[in-house]
Amino acid sequence: MSLQSLLGIDLPIIQAPMAGSQDHALAVAVSNAGGLGSLPCAMLGADALRAELVAIKAQTDRPYNLNFFCHATPVSDPVREARWRAVLEPYYRAFDLDPGQLTATPARLPFDAPTAELLEEFRPAVVSFHFGLPSHALLETIRRWDCKVLSTATTVEEARWLEARGVDAVIAQGLEAGGHRGHFLSDDLTRQSGIFALLPRIVDAVRVPVIAAGGIADHRAVVAALALGASGVQVGTAFLLCPEATTSAVHRAALADGGPQHTALTNLFSGRPARGLVNRCMRELGPMNPLAPEFPLAAAAMAPLRAYCERQGSGDFSPLWSGQNPDGCRNIPAAKLTRQLAGRA
Amino acid sequence: MSLQSLLGIDLPIIQAPMAGSQDHALAVAVSNAGGLGSLPCAMLGADALRAELVAIKAQTDRPYNLNFFCHATPVSDPVREARWRAVLEPYYRAFDLDPGQLTATPARLPFDAPTAELLEEFRPAVVSFHFGLPSHALLETIRRWDCKVLSTATTVEEARWLEARGVDAVIAQGLEAGGHRGHFLSDDLTRQSGIFALLPRIVDAVRVPVIAAGGIADHRAVVAALALGASGVQVGTAFLLCPEATTSAVHRAALADGGPQHTALTNLFSGRPARGLVNRCMRELGPMNPLAPEFPLAAAAMAPLRAYCERQGSGDFSPLWSGQNPDGCRNIPAAKLTRQLAGRA
Repeated sequence: MSLQSLLGIDLPIIQAPMAGSQDHALAVAVSNAGGLGSLPCAMLGADALRAELVAIKAQTDRPYNLNFFCHATPVSDPVREARWRAVLEPYYRAFDLDPGQLTATPARLPFDAPTAELLEEFRPAVVSFHFGLPSHALLETIRRWDCKVLSTATTVEEARWLEARGVDAVIAQGLEAGGHRGHFLSDDLTRQSGIFALLPRIVDAVRVPVIAAGGIADHRAVVAALALGASGVQVGTAFLLCPEATTSAVHRAALADGGPQHTALTNLFSGRPARGLVNRCMRELGPMNPLAPEFPLAAAAMAPLRAYCERQGSGDFSPLWSGQNPDGCRNIPAAKLTRQLAGRA
Repeated sequence: MSLQSLLGIDLPIIQAPMAGSQDHALAVAVSNAGGLGSLPCAMLGADALRAELVAIKAQTDRPYNLNFFCHATPVSDPVREARWRAVLEPYYRAFDLDPGQLTATPARLPFDAPTAELLEEFRPAVVSFHFGLPSHALLETIRRWDCKVLSTATTVEEARWLEARGVDAVIAQGLEAGGHRGHFLSDDLTRQSGIFALLPRIVDAVRVPVIAAGGIADHRAVVAALALGASGVQVGTAFLLCPEATTSAVHRAALADGGPQHTALTNLFSGRPARGLVNRCMRELGPMNPLAPEFPLAAAAMAPLRAYCERQGSGDFSPLWSGQNPDGCRNIPAAKLTRQLAGRA
């Protein structure tokens, strides 16, 4: 079955969920254009999630995707967090911030039973997961309606693991991709590879449709991904300059700067490796730092620094998520970009 | 102009030069099949190079490629080398080898004037370089005959640098590629990216034809690379099990093992990062180790360990070069593989 038939969409284009850079508006625009819009839900509380779902329902009858995280919530480690704060303290002092200050950051929460119950009222056509899958019981809950389940694989082993647990399609996330790496079987980043190596190996290893993600910036890349055996693509970075995205001003400026746009994997902003444009804190503290607290706890101590710098118009301490090819970013309506990616414009 | 017209070949398939795993036989087989066979020359002295060239000339009238390195020869650093030997000493002792023992390893030499003079007698159709380009004077020497010059870029900046110095085509080396990374403007590996991100950006940045390299294991991938804008592809790993290759027994066994075939970049074997299958010494010492001597000096101290282990039938200390997708390796004649890659079989 084609990915379009499976998901009830016209174009094999999935807009990647991008927490912090979008709400329902981007998802609605992509779904109404015939692709699959996605709403990142991991940073939304129940009320915010409900409000977003009501907004989506009001603006489209097309299928859409809700994305959740499946990490284990870590136990806070005061010693490790104190060491990390000591690393950051010179910046707190330089910016005249109180190192004891704790800024409330939107928590990243794993998918849970109350959320699954909430979804039933809206019966989304597609739910996707990052960092594996929730429990069998939770999956059963969302399968009470005709919901398709997607999840991300960064290796052939993860793709086989997901297929064995019944996902309807696997997202093959190449190392080119922006934002958080979706690995869940091994933390060893050398096990992960570029799309040219990962995609055909996963296509050959599983029977479910495979969606290519990472570095896909234009129609050429969509054609290439389909040639490698993908049934569709998931594109994130290219949508970040669309007017429907909520991408911050410093993030937009960094993406649009026309320079070499150097990205790297960093764990500074959340505790898990994620790809973003290299900025001051990544240069000075990492980009990977073994002292950063466990995901998602690292976010808290960076928040005051980020807020301070963004008030000065600087992205020095912001997560500027981007894949390795931000050349596809253009300030055009998401519907137009969706059609261009599919070769329909 | 198509790559085929530029290089005088029938198929847009270049066999990647693979020092240590091939001689003229593989190059001749690929050239006679209509692709461009390549001879790795960096580890050949003048007599050995001449013998290889005589053998090629006797066996094909088709164009072939000679590949050379362009590194600066480092000054030996006795202190650093002593520290590295101390790191390796436990293995020397475990294998009952004399830590003072020096095994003569084939040196990796940069392209030089005597070599350029030697080439004139054979007038190869194509010369390719790794790690940048030789001096302008040396390039002028080989341009006295109608020789096309290729070199490798790992970033957009390197591609522009090479075009500005007059290369006839740029090889875009994705991070998926096996063997030595070809970077020469920056040692920062995070500046390098997968083919999906690198290839279209280089295609858009330069006017000369671009050859895609890295993770290309079958015809699907060739079609995908051409869709991304490549004029041709360079394929290495897939040829390593061909009968014409001189790939060692331990290397063949590792490539054929059918497991997950985990690769990583390592500097243990030469001093420069190169991608190979992860083996014992990469697990225990690296895969990247800041103490390893500068390229190509690191090779010397590993040689006795490698020789000892290979005599026991083990590749624990051998460079098992491989790209991130060794699934294309098959024990079939190189001519057949060349045609299959081009979709002609």
